Amino acid sequence: MPPKKRARVVKKTWQEIARKAQDHRDASLNSQLNGADEALEDLERAKLSSSNAIKNTHNLPKLVSAEVLQITYTHPDHLSIMLSHGGIKAVDVMRAFTHMAAVAQKSVNCLTELLSSRAMVRAAELDKHYATTGRAVGPLHGIPLSVKSHIGIQGCQVAAGYVSWWNSREHLASEDALVVQILERAGAVVHARTTEPQSMMQLECVSNLFGTTVNPYNTDLSSGGSSGGEAALLAMRGSALGIGSDVGGSIRVPAAACGLYGLKPTAFRVPTTGWSSTPPGADPIPTVIGPMSISIFGIEDFMRVVLAAESWKVEPALLPLPWTDVKIEPTPERPLRIGVCPHDGGLILPHPPILRALEELDEKMGALPGVEIVPFHPYKFDEAWAIASSLYFTDGGAADRKVMDESGEPMLPLVSWMMNENPGVKDLTREELEYWLEERESYRLEYAKHWNQTGRWDEAAGKWVDTVDALICPVAPWIAPRHNTAKYWTYSAVWNLLDYPALAFPAGKADKNLDLETRSSFLGPRDKENAELYDPEVFHGMPVGLQIVGRRCEDEKIVAILKYLRSQGCLPAEPQIYKPEEGA
Amino acid sequence: MPPKKRARVVKKTWQEIARKAQDHRDASLNSQLNGADEALEDLERAKLSSSNAIKNTHNLPKLVSAEVLQITYTHPDHLSIMLSHGGIKAVDVMRAFTHMAAVAQKSVNCLTELLSSRAMVRAAELDKHYATTGRAVGPLHGIPLSVKSHIGIQGCQVAAGYVSWWNSREHLASEDALVVQILERAGAVVHARTTEPQSMMQLECVSNLFGTTVNPYNTDLSSGGSSGGEAALLAMRGSALGIGSDVGGSIRVPAAACGLYGLKPTAFRVPTTGWSSTPPGADPIPTVIGPMSISIFGIEDFMRVVLAAESWKVEPALLPLPWTDVKIEPTPERPLRIGVCPHDGGLILPHPPILRALEELDEKMGALPGVEIVPFHPYKFDEAWAIASSLYFTDGGAADRKVMDESGEPMLPLVSWMMNENPGVKDLTREELEYWLEERESYRLEYAKHWNQTGRWDEAAGKWVDTVDALICPVAPWIAPRHNTAKYWTYSAVWNLLDYPALAFPAGKADKNLDLETRSSFLGPRDKENAELYDPEVFHGMPVGLQIVGRRCEDEKIVAILKYLRSQGCLPAEPQIYKPEEGA
Repeated sequence: MPPKKRARVVKKTWQEIARKAQDHRDASLNSQLNGADEALEDLERAKLSSSNAIKNTHNLPKLVSAEVLQITYTHPDHLSIMLSHGGIKAVDVMRAFTHMAAVAQKSVNCLTELLSSRAMVRAAELDKHYATTGRAVGPLHGIPLSVKSHIGIQGCQVAAGYVSWWNSREHLASEDALVVQILERAGAVVHARTTEPQSMMQLECVSNLFGTTVNPYNTDLSSGGSSGGEAALLAMRGSALGIGSDVGGSIRVPAAACGLYGLKPTAFRVPTTGWSSTPPGADPIPTVIGPMSISIFGIEDFMRVVLAAESWKVEPALLPLPWTDVKIEPTPERPLRIGVCPHDGGLILPHPPILRALEELDEKMGALPGVEIVPFHPYKFDEAWAIASSLYFTDGGAADRKVMDESGEPMLPLVSWMMNENPGVKDLTREELEYWLEERESYRLEYAKHWNQTGRWDEAAGKWVDTVDALICPVAPWIAPRHNTAKYWTYSAVWNLLDYPALAFPAGKADKNLDLETRSSFLGPRDKENAELYDPEVFHGMPVGLQIVGRRCEDEKIVAILKYLRSQGCLPAEPQIYKPEEGA
Repeated sequence: MPPKKRARVVKKTWQEIARKAQDHRDASLNSQLNGADEALEDLERAKLSSSNAIKNTHNLPKLVSAEVLQITYTHPDHLSIMLSHGGIKAVDVMRAFTHMAAVAQKSVNCLTELLSSRAMVRAAELDKHYATTGRAVGPLHGIPLSVKSHIGIQGCQVAAGYVSWWNSREHLASEDALVVQILERAGAVVHARTTEPQSMMQLECVSNLFGTTVNPYNTDLSSGGSSGGEAALLAMRGSALGIGSDVGGSIRVPAAACGLYGLKPTAFRVPTTGWSSTPPGADPIPTVIGPMSISIFGIEDFMRVVLAAESWKVEPALLPLPWTDVKIEPTPERPLRIGVCPHDGGLILPHPPILRALEELDEKMGALPGVEIVPFHPYKFDEAWAIASSLYFTDGGAADRKVMDESGEPMLPLVSWMMNENPGVKDLTREELEYWLEERESYRLEYAKHWNQTGRWDEAAGKWVDTVDALICPVAPWIAPRHNTAKYWTYSAVWNLLDYPALAFPAGKADKNLDLETRSSFLGPRDKENAELYDPEVFHGMPVGLQIVGRRCEDEKIVAILKYLRSQGCLPAEPQIYKPEEGA
C-alpha cells in the first residue's frame, strides 16, 4: 500500500514566527490604538528628541489623555482604596491602564500581548458585584495586574522567550497559572502579558521574538531583566501590580533599574503551578515568582493574598507558612540591627550613585535612635557564582540549545555569555551534580555561620542572639545595564543560591553633580570593565535601587523593616498622588 | 635517594575489627556487670527456655534488682515529674538505667557502647544544679537518652553499621551531634549508643560489626530496623527516650515491632548536623531524625525541646517552624475526619493481627461523636517504590560497596536484596537522576490531589475543605519481621517519598485465638510469600503497631490527634506505673 499523501508542511523560519508573534501582539493593541496614527507619529518624533519615554508620553495629550494620566498616575495604594469603596469604577480604571499599556508598548517595547477584552469583561463583573453587594470581591478589587509571559494565561502561548515555543501547541496554556487564579479571585484583573528574554536567563530583556525592552527613564539603557517587560510597564504606569520571577536577580535587577519595589520571596512560598519550567521542587536553584510594584504595600498585599490561599495543599513543595504580620518597634535598648554591605568583597565595585545611595541611607538609618548599623562583610562571592552557575544549567545548556535549534533562531549575546563563557556551565555527570548540590549546602551552612557571627552565642539559651535583622546591599554593580552588558550576576544571585528573601527598593536618583567618575585604579579587569560602563551624564536622573535581604523565610520581616525605614523618612518620598511631571 | 623505610602496617581483617568493636562495647559494660558472672549464666539459661527477653530479666533478681526494675519500669512521664521535682535523684535514675541497658545488651544485643561515666558525671551535675537552685535545668532533666550510633557522640566512632568506618579516624566524632547538644541542654543524659544495620538501609538490624539485634518480646524475631537497637533497648526499659532516624521506615518499623511510639517528622524539622551522612538538603529522599519512646508525651517533649532551639539559624536547610500546640476538640458539627487505609491497594496484605488492630481502632473511633471515619484509598504504591528505590542509591550502591570492600566484610542478605534485587537501584546518569526527581515531584503533586479529593473544593474560599485530618494505616505488612525477611518497604517508605510526618504507635497485641491464619488465595507471589511468614503461635502476644500520617509539616496535628484518641480510650491502656509482670 502506498503511503498516504500528506499536505506538505512548509516549516516556518524563525523570522516568520517572530513576525507572527509581533503581529499578534500588535493586533491586541488595536482596540486601544486604532485611529491613533497621528499620535503615534508624534511619539516616534518625541523618541528622536528625548530618550526619556515617560516624559515623552506626558507631552503627547493626543496619545495620553489627561484622564488616562490622572488614573494611571494615582498611587496604587490610593487607587486600591478608591476601587474598593466605589470611588472609581473598575472598567474606568481598566480602560485607562490598557490604554497606557498600549502606549508603553509603543514607547519601550514591554508587552507580548494586551488582554483588553478579558480585562474589560472581568472589570465589568467586578463593578456589577460592587453595585449589587456594596462590597469589593477582595483586597485587590479592580487592580490592573500584568504577568510575565512564561506564567500561564489560559489560551495564550507560554514561550519563555523562545521562538519555537511561541509556535508550539504544547506551550499553549490550558488554564491560568495558580498564582494568577488566586490574585484574580481576590479582585485583580489581568490585562497585559509582558516581555521576557530568550531563555529567561538574562539580566536584560532581549528576545528574537520581540526584540529589546528598553528603560522608560532612558531608552539607551536596558529595563533590566529577565522580568524587564514588567518593570518597564509598571514604570510607565501601564500596570499597577506585576508578577515577575527570579532565579538570579530577574525581579530585583529590573525593579531597581526602573525605580520599583520587587520582592524575590523565599522559595516555595508563592506557587509556581502553571508556568513553563520544570516541576516545582526538582530544581537545584529554584526559580521563584514574586511581586513588583511602585508601592511597598502592593508587594505586601500580593504576598498576603497569595499566602492566604494555602496553596501548599495543592502544590506540596510549598512551605505551609501563612503570611504573618511582623511589627518593627525598635528602641535603644532593643535596637533594630541592620547590616550594610556596600560591595562584593573587592571583585567588582558598584557604580558611584549606588554607593552614594547606600551611604545616604546608612546615615539616615544611623541617626534613628532604635537602629544600629553593623558593617557586614561580603562572603565568598566568586565561590557562590561557581556553585550557582554550575547548577543553573546542569546539562550545560543542551536543552536550551535544542529549543533554539528547533526554530533556527540565533543565540543572543547575553545567553551566549551565560552558556559559553561561564566555566561552571557544562554538561554535568551525576557525580558532578551531586558534588555541586553538596557544595550548595556547604555554602549555605557557612553563610548561616557568617550571619550568626554578627551576633553572639548565648550559652544559657543555646542560641545565637543579637545577629543582624536584615542586610542592605546593592542589587547589581550598575543602576540599569547598558544594552548587552549585564554580565555579573553575583550581587543578586548569591541570595538565590542561599534562598534568602530579597526586596529591591528605590533608594534615590543618580546625579551627575554628585556621582562623579573618579576612579583611576581598579580591582582587576572585570572591575575596570564595569567601571568603564559608568558615565555621569548617561545615568543622570536614573532611579537607583538597593535591596534588603533577610534570612530564609523572613520575607515578612524585610517587608516590615522597609516599611519602618520608609515611615522614618529614610527612603525617598513618594507623593501619594503622582503628578506626571514629578513621576518622571 | 632510597625511599624511606616505613613500619609495615598489617591490615586488620574485618573479623578482627568487629572483634575489637565488640570488645570495646563489652568493656563499656564492665562497670555495670563486673562480678555478675553467675547472674549472666542464669540469663543464658533463661534464654534457652524462653524467647521473651523481657520476662527473662524479670525473673533474675540477681541480675536485675527490685530497685532497678522499679525505677526503669516507672512510666517515663512519671519519671520526668519525679526528676524535675526532686522526687528522685538523677544519679539514681542513671545508675538503674545504665544497669538495665547492660542487661538489655546481654539479652537482645542492642548496644554498640554504654556511656556510664559520661552519664554519671552529667547526672551528678544535674543533681548539684537541683540541690543549689531548687530547679530542673530543663524539661528533660535527668531523662536517660539513648542514641542510634550514626548520630555523633564526641569521641566515639560513627560507623553507620560498616566495619571499616568503625576503624577509621575520619569517622570519629569530634563533638556531639546538634540534636544531642540540644536535648542535653534541656536536661537529658546520654547513656547508651545503639545498634544499626550494615548500610543502615535495612528494616531489620544486622551488621557484621555487632551481629543481630533481636526482638525483646520474641528473640526469634527481629527488633525491626534500622533503628532496631533503640527500639529493643527502649522496650527492655534500658532507656527512657531514644533518637532514631528514618528514610524508609527505620523509626516506625522497629517502634511498631517493639510496642513503642516512634515519630518520623517532616524532613528539615529536626537538625541532622553531626551525623554520618551527606550534608542536609542535598539528598533526594531526606533521612530524618526523630524520637522513640514508650510515651506519646516523650515524643512531644522531644519535638518541643528540639524545635525551641531554632536550629534553622545554624542549619539553614531546616524549616523555621516552631513547635505549635494544636488543640483537637471535635464536635459532630465540626468533626475530626480520620482516613483509614488498611492495605496497599492489593499488592501485599498485612498479617491478621494488624488488620484486626486497625478494625478495632476504626470501631472505637467511629463510636466517638466527633469523629468521622473516611475510607482512604491507597495510591500507586508500586510507582512510589519505583521512585523511592531509584533515589535511595543514585550511584547504584557503589559508594556503599566500596566501604564494604575496604574492610572485606560480606554484604548481608537484606543489603544485597536492596542493592542487587531492586531494579530501581542502579548507577543513574544525571539525566536519569533528574527524571526521577521530576517523578518524585509529580507523585507528590498527584498525592496532594488524591488527599484533597477526600474533601471538596470551596469555590468561594478558593480552597479545599473537609479533607481528612490524618490517616491511619499499617507500618508494614508484618508485626515484627522474621529474621532476614523484611523485603517490602512501601507501607512505610511511601511517606518518606511524600515527606509526610508519620507516627507509629502501639495498637494492641497479637492473639493466636483471634488472629487466625485463614487465607487460601493470594494477590500474587509477593503476597503469598508474605502471608506464609505469619504463624499465630509465633506472633502470639507480640505488640502490634500502626501509624498515623499527616500532611507535610502537620507533625503537631498527628501527635495531637493521637493524644486525643488515647484520651478517648481508643488505644490500649498504658498503666502509669508499670509492674514488671504487666510490662512484658
